Formats: sequence, structure tokens, C-alpha cells
Amino acid sequence: MYIIIVGLGGIGRNLTAISANHGNSVVVIDQDETKCNDILEHYDVLAIAGDSTDSSVLDDAGIERAQSLVATTSDDAVNLMTCWLAKRFKVPNVVSIVNQKEHSALFKEVGVKISENPDELVATRLYYWAENPNMQQLASIPGGTIFEVVAEDDAPIINHEIRELEVKNFVFIAIRRAGGELIIPSGDVKIRPGDVITVFTKKEAEKECIAILNRQLKSPKA
Amino acid sequence: MYIIIVGLGGIGRNLTAISANHGNSVVVIDQDETKCNDILEHYDVLAIAGDSTDSSVLDDAGIERAQSLVATTSDDAVNLMTCWLAKRFKVPNVVSIVNQKEHSALFKEVGVKISENPDELVATRLYYWAENPNMQQLASIPGGTIFEVVAEDDAPIINHEIRELEVKNFVFIAIRRAGGELIIPSGDVKIRPGDVITVFTKKEAEKECIAILNRQLKSPKA
Amino acid sequence: MYIIIVGLGGIGRNLTAISANHGNSVVVIDQDETKCNDILEHYDVLAIAGDSTDSSVLDDAGIERAQSLVATTSDDAVNLMTCWLAKRFKVPNVVSIVNQKEHSALFKEVGVKISENPDELVATRLYYWAENPNMQQLASIPGGTIFEVVAEDDAPIINHEIRELEVKNFVFIAIRRAGGELIIPSGDVKIRPGDVITVFTKKEAEKECIAILNRQLKSPKA
Amino acid sequence: MYIIIVGLGGIGRNLTAISANHGNSVVVIDQDETKCNDILEHYDVLAIAGDSTDSSVLDDAGIERAQSLVATTSDDAVNLMTCWLAKRFKVPNVVSIVNQKEHSALFKEVGVKISENPDELVATRLYYWAENPNMQQLASIPGGTIFEVVAEDDAPIINHEIRELEVKNFVFIAIRRAGGELIIPSGDVKIRPGDVITVFTKKEAEKECIAILNRQLKSPKA
Amino acid sequence: MYIIIVGLGGIGRNLTAISANHGNSVVVIDQDETKCNDILEHYDVLAIAGDSTDSSVLDDAGIERAQSLVATTSDDAVNLMTCWLAKRFKVPNVVSIVNQKEHSALFKEVGVKISENPDELVATRLYYWAENPNMQQLASIPGGTIFEVVAEDDAPIINHEIRELEVKNFVFIAIRRAGGELIIPSGDVKIRPGDVITVFTKKEAEKECIAILNRQLKSPKA
Amino acid sequence: MYIIIVGLGGIGRNLTAISANHGNSVVVIDQDETKCNDILEHYDVLAIAGDSTDSSVLDDAGIERAQSLVATTSDDAVNLMTCWLAKRFKVPNVVSIVNQKEHSALFKEVGVKISENPDELVATRLYYWAENPNMQQLASIPGGTIFEVVAEDDAPIINHEIRELEVKNFVFIAIRRAGGELIIPSGDVKIRPGDVITVFTKKEAEKECIAILNRQLKSPKA
Amino acid sequence: MYIIIVGLGGIGRNLTAISANHGNSVVVIDQDETKCNDILEHYDVLAIAGDSTDSSVLDDAGIERAQSLVATTSDDAVNLMTCWLAKRFKVPNVVSIVNQKEHSALFKEVGVKISENPDELVATRLYYWAENPNMQQLASIPGGTIFEVVAEDDAPIINHEIRELEVKNFVFIAIRRAGGELIIPSGDVKIRPGDVITVFTKKEAEKECIAILNRQLKSPKA
Amino acid sequence: MYIIIVGLGGIGRNLTAISANHGNSVVVIDQDETKCNDILEHYDVLAIAGDSTDSSVLDDAGIERAQSLVATTSDDAVNLMTCWLAKRFKVPNVVSIVNQKEHSALFKEVGVKISENPDELVATRLYYWAENPNMQQLASIPGGTIFEVVAEDDAPIINHEIRELEVKNFVFIAIRRAGGELIIPSGDVKIRPGDVITVFTKKEAEKECIAILNRQLKSPKA
Repeated sequence: MYIIIVGLGGIGRNLTAISANHGNSVVVIDQDETKCNDILEHYDVLAIAGDSTDSSVLDDAGIERAQSLVATTSDDAVNLMTCWLAKRFKVPNVVSIVNQKEHSALFKEVGVKISENPDELVATRLYYWAENPNMQQLASIPGGTIFEVVAEDDAPIINHEIRELEVKNFVFIAIRRAGGELIIPSGDVKIRPGDVITVFTKKEAEKECIAILNRQLKSPKA
Repeated sequence: MYIIIVGLGGIGRNLTAISANHGNSVVVIDQDETKCNDILEHYDVLAIAGDSTDSSVLDDAGIERAQSLVATTSDDAVNLMTCWLAKRFKVPNVVSIVNQKEHSALFKEVGVKISENPDELVATRLYYWAENPNMQQLASIPGGTIFEVVAEDDAPIINHEIRELEVKNFVFIAIRRAGGELIIPSGDVKIRPGDVITVFTKKEAEKECIAILNRQLKSPKA
Repeated sequence: MYIIIVGLGGIGRNLTAISANHGNSVVVIDQDETKCNDILEHYDVLAIAGDSTDSSVLDDAGIERAQSLVATTSDDAVNLMTCWLAKRFKVPNVVSIVNQKEHSALFKEVGVKISENPDELVATRLYYWAENPNMQQLASIPGGTIFEVVAEDDAPIINHEIRELEVKNFVFIAIRRAGGELIIPSGDVKIRPGDVITVFTKKEAEKECIAILNRQLKSPKA
Repeated sequence: MYIIIVGLGGIGRNLTAISANHGNSVVVIDQDETKCNDILEHYDVLAIAGDSTDSSVLDDAGIERAQSLVATTSDDAVNLMTCWLAKRFKVPNVVSIVNQKEHSALFKEVGVKISENPDELVATRLYYWAENPNMQQLASIPGGTIFEVVAEDDAPIINHEIRELEVKNFVFIAIRRAGGELIIPSGDVKIRPGDVITVFTKKEAEKECIAILNRQLKSPKA
Repeated sequence: MYIIIVGLGGIGRNLTAISANHGNSVVVIDQDETKCNDILEHYDVLAIAGDSTDSSVLDDAGIERAQSLVATTSDDAVNLMTCWLAKRFKVPNVVSIVNQKEHSALFKEVGVKISENPDELVATRLYYWAENPNMQQLASIPGGTIFEVVAEDDAPIINHEIRELEVKNFVFIAIRRAGGELIIPSGDVKIRPGDVITVFTKKEAEKECIAILNRQLKSPKA
Repeated sequence: MYIIIVGLGGIGRNLTAISANHGNSVVVIDQDETKCNDILEHYDVLAIAGDSTDSSVLDDAGIERAQSLVATTSDDAVNLMTCWLAKRFKVPNVVSIVNQKEHSALFKEVGVKISENPDELVATRLYYWAENPNMQQLASIPGGTIFEVVAEDDAPIINHEIRELEVKNFVFIAIRRAGGELIIPSGDVKIRPGDVITVFTKKEAEKECIAILNRQLKSPKA
Repeated sequence: MYIIIVGLGGIGRNLTAISANHGNSVVVIDQDETKCNDILEHYDVLAIAGDSTDSSVLDDAGIERAQSLVATTSDDAVNLMTCWLAKRFKVPNVVSIVNQKEHSALFKEVGVKISENPDELVATRLYYWAENPNMQQLASIPGGTIFEVVAEDDAPIINHEIRELEVKNFVFIAIRRAGGELIIPSGDVKIRPGDVITVFTKKEAEKECIAILNRQLKSPKA
Repeated sequence: MYIIIVGLGGIGRNLTAISANHGNSVVVIDQDETKCNDILEHYDVLAIAGDSTDSSVLDDAGIERAQSLVATTSDDAVNLMTCWLAKRFKVPNVVSIVNQKEHSALFKEVGVKISENPDELVATRLYYWAENPNMQQLASIPGGTIFEVVAEDDAPIINHEIRELEVKNFVFIAIRRAGGELIIPSGDVKIRPGDVITVFTKKEAEKECIAILNRQLKSPKA
């Protein structure tokens, strides 16, 4: 894949690493020459110090033959204009982060795939964990959440087969057991203390789910 | 919940918003007085401009009665020392982001829950999307990945009931249908074009899964 | 008129002065608080220090009831996103400067009136003057240019009536005579030395026109 | 032409581009070495990093054989002293922008051709457009203004020959028709909807002119 | 000895000088490239510009075969994390300065030898001297202090043998006599005016000690 | 004591703390107003933002009635001039740190008590410790050094009375025993494992001393 | 006298002090607000933070009633334009320093009294002194120099009356004798060792003059 | 002459120019490497970027064989310490500017020739000129001043021989006449209008002197 990555902040640098390590042809664009030089020392990529909203810079980056462009700067205006130019250059796959939710509509109108506020994504995850140390939020989709829960010794589920549970509003996705075994749960799997259970639950069933798997519904201290 | 948030970068600011909006007692600590003043204008929190590794600052933040402390700075050394001090102050739930993977062991030894490199998390997600515009990675766990896939018109799965598929290595988690309906898949659900399918698949079955659901296994251009 | 002006560079400051002096309701937006405070000391306007691509800032600026928004920053990406948001807020009249010619198409697609590269406008004018000290370019339109020429003592036109000239490719627009009189030229006006003639000429007739009016077609020194 | 350009701000850079593209011998002077290096990468000119009020710098720039010097810095004091030195070096054609109107007299006394406040020029143009989206101011001269107006479908002028109009105080300069045709108007030209009319009007006839050509004399909203 | 020195502030630079002059293999690490280059000009050491909490930097510094690592930065969090990583790399001898007393416990728990607040050490010494110009504090240990005192002409001790004094709470350590002779005091040494006496005294005997040796117990001026 | 402290770096701040805590009248002088304000928040002192080589500043600081002035800046030229002015103002006790050894003579000529390079003092201490983790250098005087040594289980001295040792070139100063007891050593004290022994030794006897007390004379690894 | 002083560098500050101390009405102008505030704390003057080439600033400074304006900035372009504006405001007495000799002609043309390069003035004085420690240059005029010379014990002039000397090319101006007596020399004054003689000499007689008064014409070392 | 110049401010640069142009061996020292490089481009000198109070820097500058050292920095503490070190290195001729009058005594005690506050010197000159445009102060000595006065047409002195005047308290030094002639005044010289008279006058006779030579004793405007 020929991929252009715009912006060398934390996300852009990681994306460069991943893309290069997968053997792709990678071009990065950033205004800051220092960051460009730095990335060149670490990865076998092409780096261009310049303004990605400048057509001649995109040209130098080989926009004509790019299969993907991913905009990762913290400035939505730059992301938007860059993506739009990329669409006009007929790049098949244009992706962007969107730092402010209110800008999402503009990106969609131009036909850009977006990943909304990455910082909020991480913050949500940390927040769940701060609330309940034995439960880690992995992702959310509209209407529900995917968690990891550690089965506590005295949780109701312990030593029961999954099929025994009335699970209308949640789905067992996977179980990781001490030793690293990964089990795709079928009805006759019996849960043991310490199992790390990946589970999907609808919003309305979240508390019930935790009660069954982990018993952590004590009232907060203060 | 009484929660102390250390660092007011993008993640810290979002975490402050989420925590305040959930009605918690929130204290934030950042070295930069400007950032502290800024957060005070937007949320009903306490903000302390100071060094979180300074015990007197933690004291001012009410560390004695905090139920959670979350360290979100981009400096692992600060996160580590702050978390360690928090543990010694008997904060029940101490969480930190870890910017460099190699530091994870130190945090675990001190008893801190960690969320590794948030930028890498986002970058991975963008990368999957750059590779395949109809498939969005939501999360990964050791051994497998959770995706969202849009069912294409001509995908093999269309108009089949889930039970017809031989799905040994993946799990249907949820289906979102035009109009916003969220379906927890049972065997007799029939897939329609445009359905957004949330699915878990083991690493080794990833390609097969996409082939069945989405038919996007064309060879790349270059 | 209720007008929002984005950007307080040289152009924005002048536009604020003109707009305020014409008795309009003026709101200015600039990232730089110092510039905002400065403008408030000189004009009876509202000034908002903030990012014009932030919807809440536009809201504060009264975008709902604005009749015009003019974007004057040196960053086309900011101008574009701001104007687009303004269009979505149904501002009837959205105008922007465009700093790079290649971006013009994007602005037009969103329905924004544009004024291309203002620096180039001034530079063109200076260039003409540098070439010929007695001829000042006032404006150009596709296919032709509007000049001011000082009629020299020995120019062919002196003491001739306009109707005597074979003027196929140019138009006499106005004549300014010593003492400040402004004459709209009719055929029987006789040109005198020192008259400042405003004239339009097609590109192909430019040299001929100067030869007749001013005789400055000497070959350059080097 | 051998031309010296002082200052590499927006205007200076554009002037350099225009001058170089017309095949002149161009020397630029700016205090900032970075700007000098940058211009050298793009144009075939000579660039001198230095203070243009320093005679030895002017000497290096070849002031002895220069035919024009154009001062474009934002500092009138620098422009004035540089131009004055240029006059003493007998440069035939010395041009300057003047940033503050009050300084114009000094420049004139030294014999420098001046272009007053370029930002105000652009701002005036934007202001006219903000007031009336179908009318673009192109230039003004003492006593009158040159506009472009789009003929609206229901304007009084539509389908009339120019000669039918009583046009005492304005001059038709040119008409641009869909397809790009440029017409120098004679009396029997008939105006069609969508024609872009370039017109000169005396100050006192401005409103009347717009009423006839464009019908935009509705009272403002607020 | 193979020694790694972290931080090139005043202490780090001096430590580098001492270590290099003793013929050790020395590696220094500092974030600031300028400081690294500077040290390379003066000493035969290896200097690495980088973050000492980054394992790959420690690797480059040869942490695997280091016998000592000394952390000297003014940031305790950096010192702590660096030292901890060094312990995990099995460096036999890990030493650090600790800038805030409250952090000492953390360093000790990791097994790091610490030198508390070096600035306080020097300040204490200066303070003693400011109080009594003939008495210089050399060091303190819990419960007592080591001084240097100049024997004044009229001090009670002059011309007495040490054994004559009832010295229950202090120890004569050394006597330096004009000409530079260093005497380890035995009971029959007779004190002469101008002798510089190094003496240890318990806290409670400090004043008595000075009275005998130096007679400086006048009441302060103000 | 009325004391003036010049410079609010690390040493100056600590000296201010010590001096204020001892109940002295303290005046501090530093060029940096921020540092002055900061110290005022923590201690009951007078702080003057200004140049200590300016007589009027010294005047404001009450130099006429000061009993001591201590110069602690990192700039020897400032320290020297300030101290000299203080001597001329008849301050009885003038003390300074000297950052470069070569400057010591100048200070002495003016009659200033000096403490040479404080960073070197600390660095020396760290160096000794880096070489031998069980031995801490406390101070040195010309011709010898004062150490603290932990008596190892298998050191020759264990369970011997001090008088049994042939100690020609060193002096036992104090012994600190588990539990915090401080013993002034007489001949019949018996050393136990873990005792922390403060000892003075002549340069030439240093190795022998360590061998007896601590057995750490293994040859270094590399 | 009502005096306006432009620029608060070293010269401007000293001029402000002198002018204020002579009881004049003083207004100072400098771009730097900090410098303006600083001067207000020390002198009873009016200070305006602004650009002296801005007519409204000169207006605020009371240019209409000023008797003198002195420009002291290090930027000749600013000095020139300011002085010129002052001349147009009919300030009777306009004085400026000129930093580059080549600019002198421009100032003179505008009618400004100038003091050329003040740094060169001081440097010349230092140079003379560096060459001959007993001779201090006080000033030069075209064709000659004014010195101070200390009469050495063995100089030819000692114990001679002035009239005895053949002094064609120099003039005795004054003699300062130990004790501070100032003598205006008449022919019968006898020179004594240690007399400080102020003398004017033509360029060609400089060496001879020194030979007679001071005997310092040894050939230089190297 | 082998001369070391410390400091490359305005005075230092001019002194370097003068010294180099007189064919001396010149070494300059300044902390700022840029300034050093700059001076090397213009003069054939040696330039050392470093701290002149550092003995090794003075060593590199060849202090052992220097005949003069001139300190010109704006920091008296640096000037003092540098000069003192130079005296200890036995430099025969050590000169310094002194920025604050109160420091003069210290320099003199060390044996340094000083030139007090150069800015005040220039300011005094400008002040005299601001007061009286026809009179320029050249220098002052204790008790009197040296001026240049232009003889006005109607001054009492015009067409009188010098001997006619009762000049008890002033000395005619030189007369410069139109055409550039320099006259050393004898009694029978007759003063003509426009003569530039260099004159010395005692303080008490200053006004009388001006009255006779120039008639400028009108009372000031305000």
C-alpha cells in the first residue's frame, strides 16, 4: 500500500511505525523539519517538511499514486483541507482524525472516513477503569460497550457454565485464562476465578452484567 | 467518586470533562498555571498548578481521601513517581498511561493499573482503516481483534442466516441496521447489505472473516 | 449590516475600521487576545479572542444573525473551514481572501466569494509602476488592464481630441486635470499635458496605448 | 530591467515572482537570512541578507546600475531612508509602499512614487463585496469607483441596448459574457442576464448605477 | 570502573571531571546535545544526548556492563526511574542525589544509595561560617558536627596540652599548623595560636567547644 | 544576626530557609523578581529584586547594619564585586562561594571567606560512593579525608576493641549503632557488624583503613 | 526648555536624567513599555510607549510646543524619519545621533544637528589611552586633538615656564594641580611633576607635544 | 601593540576597528559566538568566544604578552574581575569603561585606568546642543568645559581682534574658518561671522562667554 501520513505528532509517529513495519510505501508530511529528520533516522520512509494544504507538497508526496492518506494533525482545518485536496486527487481511501466533534459533518460531506477525538477515546477508557479497577472498557459502539472483566473469587458466575446464565443483553466474546489460553466461549465453558472475560453489554444491562461477573457494585466511599 | 487527575494534555482535559459530567469530585494537577485557569473556566473542579511529585501538592489535592488517581502526562517518570506516592498515600485505585512500553513493568511492580501508549492505540485503528475502508478496528486483545465491518452487497454472507456459516474462530457481537436498531445476534438473524457487523476474530482467522463478510481481499494496487 | 470579520492582520484591521466607520454592527474574531484588546481601544466593535473554526466561538459572535462574514487570515485552511461553517449557519454573504490560487476551487465549491492573493494584487501594481513611472496599473480583469497614465508633453495625443484617435481596443474612462476636475471623456475632449488619464486596454493593445498616450516605449538600459 | 526589491514579506515575495517571471534582473534585500535562502530556492534572483539602509548593502545589490528600486517593508522609516539613498544613487525609478498615510508627504518630497496602505486597498474591496455580493469594487480614483456588477435576471437593463440608458455619470468599460468573451461596449450592445459588467461611476451616481444594473437596493436586514 | 553519569548540570560536570581524571571508563547522558558536545571537548568520555529513562539510551550507554550509575539531575522523577531501570539491569552500584527530602523513601525502597539535597549541604556550611567567621562546618552526622576552628591568640586552649582539657563530648581529629604540617592529635600535643583544629562535637557541646578553642561567644550585635 | 543573602539559586534558597528558621533578620537580593516573590511566600524575610553590585540596592538591603553578607550566585564576577562593596561598607563577616578555583586568590585579597566550588564538593562525595557503596566521604581537608564506613560482617575489625588495632594514620571519630546510639569511641569500644563508623584517615592510609574496617578491596570488574 | 527625547537606550536614559535634573519639561518616547515604566519610577518626566514615527505619538508628546527633540535610537532610519517629522512640526532645535557615518548627509539635508557614532567617540578615547597610559584624549576636531597629559618627573617641560617652550602647533588650555586647583595657563606658569595638562595640538605636532610634556615615546614592545 | 579587547558591543566593535586599522595585533573576547564570527569577517584579528573572567580564556588570548587590555562590556563586575586578572598577569596597561560611577573606586584600587559612563558623555554633549543649537560641547574637565561655538553675524565679537576682549576665564583654542582652514589663535586674529571657535571656559564664565561669542542668551520659550 502507498500511504501518505500527514502530521508527526504522537499518533502520526506511531502510524508511521506501524505502516513501515507492515512493509508499505510510506510518505510523511509535517511542517516541522526537525520532526521529519527524526523520523527518517528511525524508519525507511520518505519525509517532506512542508504544508500539506499546499498542492505542490502533496504532489511531491506522490499523491497521484497514493492509495491512502491519513490526516492526524491537531488542527481540524488543516485535516479538512488536506483531505479534501486528496479526494480531488482521487485518493481512494482518505481517513482523518477529527479533534472537535462539531466538525465531523464537514469531513463526512467531503467523503472522508473519520475517527473522532482520539484523546476522548483514551479518556473514556481511563475513566471506566478509575471507577472500577477490575473492569476495563475496550471500546463502545452506539448502544453498548465492550469490557474486560476479571472474574472475582466470589462472583456469582464462578463455577457456572455460561449456558446457566440468563444473558439476554450481553454477549461473551472471549475468555483469557491463566497461562494465556484464549477461549471462544461456547455454552458449556465453566468460568473460573481469575478468568479475564471479554464481554459486550447493552447500555441498560451494564450494571447487571458487572454484578454477575464481578460483584463490584458496592456504593462509593464518599 | 473523589478523583485526582494529573496532567492537562488532551487526554487529561477529556478525562476531566467526563469525570465532572458524571458528577464526581474532581481535582486536577498540572505544572502550567494557564492550563489550570483554563479548565476552571469550563468545569466545576479544583485545579492546582504545581508538581504532582511534590508531596505537599498531593496533600493540597486531598490525596488522603481520594478514591482514584489517574496520571496522564506524557512523561513516564512523572507518572511513575506520582502513582507511587499515591499508592503510599493508600489511594485505592491508581491508574496511569504509559508512554513507553518498556516502562510497563515498573508501573506494575508498584501496583498501578496501566493503559499503554494511547497514541499507538489510535494509530492502529487508523491503520486498519487505511488498509480497508469498510472495516474499522475497535480494539485488540491478546490473540484476536474486534472489528466493525460493513456488509457489502455481494459479500457471501448476504441473505444467509448466521447459523449457516461455519464460524469456528470468530464471534458475532452485534449488528447495527439502518435506522439505528442494535441486534444481539442469534443464529437465525439474516444479514442484509449495509449492516454494520461487530465481530471478534482470532488473529489466524482474520482474512477468512473479512472474505465472508465483506469480500475486500483484492490484491493491493502497487 | 451585521458583519463578522475573521483575522486581525493588516487587512482585517483595515476592514474593521471601514466597517465601523460606515456604522455597521461589527464583530471581530482573532486568536490573539492582544490584537483583540488593541482593536477595542480604537473602534466601537465586539472582539472575541478565539478560534473561528470553533462553533461555540461563532455562536458567541452572533453568527445566527450575521449578514456577512469575511475571512481575512493568512491561513487558507482556517478561512475555508470558517466560511464553510458560516454557510451552514446560513450567513447570506460569505467572503474570503485566498492566499494560494490552487485553493480557489474549494472555496467556490462551498459557495464562498473569494478575493485571490491580496499581496499579488499589490505586487502587480508596484511592478507596473517600477517598469514605467508614468503609468500606474489600477486593476486587471481577464483580458485587459485598467491604467492611469500621465500625458507627457510630447506624447502623440497631446492637443488632439479623443475622437481623432483610432481606439479600437481601449476605452477612455476618466480624465483628471490639474485643479482636481474629473472629466468623463466624450469625443470632443482635448488632451492636455499633465492630464491623468484612466484608460482600459485589452492585453494585446497595451503597448500601443502607452505609445500614443505617453511615449515611454524606450528600450530598457541593460 | 534591473530591479532591486527591498523586503520579503508577502508583497515582496510576490513582486519577486512577477519580476523574475518577466525575465528581469532581480536583486532582493531582506534582514532575514532564512527568507533570502527560501527565495533563492524558488527564483533565479540574487538575494542579500542585510539592512537596506546600509550603503554597502545597496552597493552589493548593484544600486549603481539599478533602473528601479521598490521598497515593500512594513516599516515606513526603513522604506523612506532606503528610497532616499536610492535617489542619491540616481536610481531612475524609486517606488515604495507607505504604511501610514501621514508619511506620504515625506516620500513625495524625496521624489518617491508611493502606493499607500496596501491592506486598506484590499479591505475596501472586501467591504464592498460584503455589502453587495453581486458587485465587486476593482479600484477607486478621486471622485469615482470602478466596479464589476453581475447583471441580474430582473435588472432594468436586461435586454436593453446601452444607448437606451441615460448614462451621464458612468462609463461602461467592458462586458464579460458566459464563455469568456470580452466585449468593449459600443452603444448597440444588448445586456443579457449574467453578464459581468465593468463600469466606472462617479461617487454621486453609485446607487443609481447599481439600481439600473443589478436591482440590489433592498434595505438591509437589521 | 565503568561509570554512567546522568545529567550534566554543575554536579554532573564535576563528577565527570573527577571520574575521567581517575582513569575510569565514563559515559554521560543528558537531554541537551549542546552540553554533551561541550563535555566531549574537555574529557575523554562517551556522551549520549537522550532521555535516560529510555531503555534504548541506557543500552547505548553500555548499562549491561556498568559498575556504577550516578543520577545527578534536578528532577527526582527522572533520577528515580533511571535508577530503578539501572537496578533492573543489575548495575551493582546505583547512586542518586535526591532533591526533595520526601522522595528519599522511594529511592531507598528501590535500593538506591542517595545523597540528599546537595544545595542544603552547602548552605548549612555557609550559614555556620556567616555566624562565626573563625569556624567552618565541614560535615554533620546525626547527633553531631565536624568543624574547623582557628585557635585565637587568647583562646583558653592556647599553650595547653590536649590531655589537660576535659573533653567528654568532642574529639580532636586533626591539627593543621602554619607551614602545612598535618598532625593527628595525641594527648601531649600543645595548641598554638593560628592552629587550624578539626574537631567533632556532639550537638549539646557545640558552644562549650567553641568557647574553649576560639572564645567567639560574644553576644550578637542586633 | 542581620544577614544579607545574594542570589536565589538552590544554595541561596536553602541558606534563606536555614537563616530564617534560626530567627535571624534576613534580606535576600536577586535579579529575578519572580524568585523574590516566591521566597516571600515561604519565609519571613525581606527580598529585593535588583543588582547586588549596585550600591543603592545594597543600601536598600540595609548593608550599613548587616553583620554578614553571603554571595551565592553562579557568577564569580558578581560575587567578587558584591563582596568587595560589602567590605567597603564595613560588613564584619563576608562569605562567598567561588565557582572557579582560579578566582580564589582575588576573593582572599579582598578579605572574603570563601567556599570553593560547591558542585565539586558534592561530586567528590558521589564519586567516592560510586567507587565503594559501603563508604561515604563526608569531607576532606588538606592531607586527609573523613569517611563513613559500614562495618561488614566479615571485616577484620569485627568484634575487636579499637585499641587492638594499630591505627597510626587514622582517627575514630564516632560510631553510630543500630537504634541510633552515637558513641564517641574510646579504646575499649568493640565494633559490631552494621556499625556506621566515622573515621578520619590520612591520604596514604586510605586503602589500609578500608581494608580493616570493610574488606571492600576487591579488584574492579573491568 | 520643553524637550522630547526619543529612545531609552543608555544615551537616552542619561539624557533624560540630565534634562530632568536641569529642571526642564521632559517627554520621552520608546517602543518598550517596560523601559518607559522604569524611567517614570526615577524621574519626574512624561513617558510615552509608542513609535516615534507615528504622528499621533508625537502629538501626544506635545510636539507642537517642544523646543528641542533629540533622537537617540540605534536605528538611523527611525532617527531620520522622527527628526524630519519634528522639523515639519516646526520644532526649533532638532538633534540626533547618527549611527552610520554614511547617513550623515541625509540628516543634514533635513536640517538636523547630528552627533556622529557615539560608540566610535568613546572607542577613540579608549584607544589613545591603551596606547599611552599617561595621555587621555578628550576630543578631536578636524585637524587636531585635545589631550590630557600627566607631566612625568623626567619630562623636558618640568620646571620650565610655558613661555620657554617653542609651541607653534599647540595650545595650553588648562592645568590641574594636586589639590584640585585649576590654572588657566599664562606664559609664566611653571610646570611641576604630576600636573595634569590639557593641551590642544595639531595632528602633525602630536608626537612632538608628547615628547616634551611626557617623554613616553619609547618604541612599542612587539 | 598587542591589545586585548573584551566585549563586542558598540564600543568594543569600534575599538576593534580602530586598533586593527592602526596595524596592531588585536585579540577580542566576547561570550557571544555570533559576534565573534561577525568581527572575523571584517577585520584581521583573533576572536575568542568565551568568558573573559576565565583564566584559560585569557591564556588563549595571549594575556602573557599583551601590552594593553581594554574592558568594554556593560557589566562592571565582569570588567572589574577581568581587569584585575589582567593586572595579575602583569599587563602593563589596563583600561576599562565603568558603567556606574560608584564602582570607580574599586577599579582605581586595582590600578585600572577608567573611562566613566560613556553614555553619559554622549548624553551631556547632546544636552548642550539641545539647549543651544549653535554651541557644541566637546569635553569637560573638572571646573570647566570645552565648546565649539559658531560666531553669529551680530555677536559682539565679530570684527574684533581677540586681544580686545577681556578674557580672564576662557581660552581660545582654535578657529575653523569656511574653507577648512584651522587657525591657532593669536591675539591679532579677527573673528568673522561663521567662524567655528573652539574655546575653553571655566564653569562660572560659561554664560558670559556665550554672550560675547554668540548672543544666544534669550530667555527660553516656556
